[in-house]
Amino acid sequence: MSPPSAAAESTTVWAELRHAKPSDVPFIRRMIYQMAEFERLTHLFSATDTSLLSTLFPSPPLPQFFSFTPLVLYLSFTSPPVPSSQTLSITQFSLSSPIVDPDEADFGSPLGDGRRIAGFVICFPNYSTFLAKPGLYIEDIFVREPWRRMGFGKFMLSSVAKKAAELGMGRVEWCVLDWNVNAIEFYKGMGAEVFQEWRICRLTGPSLEKYKDE
Amino acid sequence: MSPPSAAAESTTVWAELRHAKPSDVPFIRRMIYQMAEFERLTHLFSATDTSLLSTLFPSPPLPQFFSFTPLVLYLSFTSPPVPSSQTLSITQFSLSSPIVDPDEADFGSPLGDGRRIAGFVICFPNYSTFLAKPGLYIEDIFVREPWRRMGFGKFMLSSVAKKAAELGMGRVEWCVLDWNVNAIEFYKGMGAEVFQEWRICRLTGPSLEKYKDE
Repeated sequence: MSPPSAAAESTTVWAELRHAKPSDVPFIRRMIYQMAEFERLTHLFSATDTSLLSTLFPSPPLPQFFSFTPLVLYLSFTSPPVPSSQTLSITQFSLSSPIVDPDEADFGSPLGDGRRIAGFVICFPNYSTFLAKPGLYIEDIFVREPWRRMGFGKFMLSSVAKKAAELGMGRVEWCVLDWNVNAIEFYKGMGAEVFQEWRICRLTGPSLEKYKDE
Repeated sequence: MSPPSAAAESTTVWAELRHAKPSDVPFIRRMIYQMAEFERLTHLFSATDTSLLSTLFPSPPLPQFFSFTPLVLYLSFTSPPVPSSQTLSITQFSLSSPIVDPDEADFGSPLGDGRRIAGFVICFPNYSTFLAKPGLYIEDIFVREPWRRMGFGKFMLSSVAKKAAELGMGRVEWCVLDWNVNAIEFYKGMGAEVFQEWRICRLTGPSLEKYKDE
């Protein structure tokens, strides 16, 4: 018996990281909820399509990467995506077998061409006083479950880091939970330093609201 | 012997937290360096007056609290400051004894009236996807050494938290080093939650620059 041909076994996927459009908001909201489930933080989730739309797509629009900047990972299967002014990066992946994506209908193109959103990034500028330079803070970087461990996260993080470096920013930063050892190893492999000494402090809810009366 | 009068012993200080002006930049740069010394991070310090000026005071100016926002703590001794559109908050302190401030000449008013800068805050908006709301991130909050443990830090943090709450922001966040137990107790006393599980990841320097070539 001859071995199956490589062509029959491998699946080509084109991945585009592009700026999100207002019509992507429902997809982003669903992925934020999936992320909250993964991080065991659904009790903190209160985003709606309306609140995401008004805060991520203010009118007039703010400049990309110098205000809140949502990006989506868009996958195409039958032909490569056409790059636009909203495209950050496109690359081609070869998967060893087709992927079962139970949520395809919730994230897919209405054209029925299999194209779909498989992840997102939300980032915004931060500032380092030591460097006297803006940086980029990645609030979220998320790949939907069936598409993990294939390089899409690396593609997204690399694309964002490349953009930040090109913009002359001094740092790219993000947070990780200390029990998420897979993520930590992945980030270290990308060249990141993981700071063990810093702790995040937060005022929120009633602890923040009480300051209104001071 | 009659006890010394309270008037002779106490010193009245008016503290104003106000938006920084371009002419405050040399004061801010000196305080950033003092902060780097305290945090044992002077090897990361590369800010200059020129780089701070161009990044903190871009032209055209960006909206306060929705971009990088520097504030200074300004102390007056002989009469209260006159509030302006740049004033965030003014309050009066009664100190039990006069303060020796060896750096007065570096931070003082050229008018010789004793007025001086004793601290600063740099903050900028961040974004919570779970809340679908902007928040405020405090990059630095600093009081010069002779003026610590008198309530100025609390005054600054409260004023910023009040402003964030008034602006409808969902969170105020900042970082603390885990060995800085005094700061941690202070922040907890202000109502802050200190997160033990999150770690900051950073790409900077050559680890960031290499992504330019990808």
